[in-house]
Amino acid sequence: MMKAVSTESGEASKAIGHYHGVNRGLSVFDLILRIVAIVGTLAGAVAMGTAEQTLPFVTQLVQFSAQYDDFDTFKLFVIVNAIICAYLALSLPFSIFHIIRSRAGKSRILLIFLDAIMLALLTSGASAAAAIVYLAHNGNSSANWFSICQQYTDFCQRSAGSLIGSFGAMVCLVLLIILSAVAISRR
Amino acid sequence: MMKAVSTESGEASKAIGHYHGVNRGLSVFDLILRIVAIVGTLAGAVAMGTAEQTLPFVTQLVQFSAQYDDFDTFKLFVIVNAIICAYLALSLPFSIFHIIRSRAGKSRILLIFLDAIMLALLTSGASAAAAIVYLAHNGNSSANWFSICQQYTDFCQRSAGSLIGSFGAMVCLVLLIILSAVAISRR
Repeated sequence: MMKAVSTESGEASKAIGHYHGVNRGLSVFDLILRIVAIVGTLAGAVAMGTAEQTLPFVTQLVQFSAQYDDFDTFKLFVIVNAIICAYLALSLPFSIFHIIRSRAGKSRILLIFLDAIMLALLTSGASAAAAIVYLAHNGNSSANWFSICQQYTDFCQRSAGSLIGSFGAMVCLVLLIILSAVAISRR
Repeated sequence: MMKAVSTESGEASKAIGHYHGVNRGLSVFDLILRIVAIVGTLAGAVAMGTAEQTLPFVTQLVQFSAQYDDFDTFKLFVIVNAIICAYLALSLPFSIFHIIRSRAGKSRILLIFLDAIMLALLTSGASAAAAIVYLAHNGNSSANWFSICQQYTDFCQRSAGSLIGSFGAMVCLVLLIILSAVAISRR
């Protein structure tokens, strides 16, 4: 009888060990995703923030140049990326805390909520910037907005490339939310 | 002793009744929010889809006119709104089912998941359209994109107004997700 009990408790502790192991694995993956998203938003903000180009010819009065802050949408994009990068950096200690204490519940719920808000903010900023990048590439004949990418090739490539970082970070945030939901439902 | 037990079971059934009452209230509110969001997205899609303006003067070769489908972003906006309107209409039976059976769990989780995807889609479409509406109002001097709202006043007002419906629907979807999360956590 004594033996049976000890076997059972051994199995139970093994099950708990397995449970903690999986949750710890999820938390480590959470930490990695956050770091990838930080790199993505930072790269997006820096690439957009340093996008400028001056055309090599000068007319009598004007020198043609394009900078990210000529476009309000691109300014918004940089600000949004910076905010989300800062938020993700601040959330790293929580993520590490979840690796150490895999049963923590309330902080996970707080984090899933904030992650969702940040995802909405990033989606909005990146989509608006994508609309302007699209316009810069294709122009619009009925509004008489000409494509500026024939002249400002570097600027266009830079601003389009900076979207990649942001959209990558969006994917990371979606995965983070799903991971947190799985971890919460396993409690 | 008998009396005490019956009082207790009475209290328990009252508590269960209260529980069902609150969850039913949440479900009714869910249904109302869905209907409001349907109206919002439908109004957004229709207002944008019917936005067109022909200027009253004709030059030798061209008559100036603007339509929503001259702008790819506005086309996307109409499509996204239509998709979300259709999704919300299809989700109404689920919402009604939740009023009748307030303990249903799995269908709520499915719904919260789909709601979140639709929210992301709507945020992206509405933000991109807002970026173009902003550009149409303000223009951009360094890209030589002139404001078209001096000429196409009606078209601009219509396209800006259609954003209101979409952003209203976004607020509804956020509330829907929070409501569902509350209902799931109360099970």
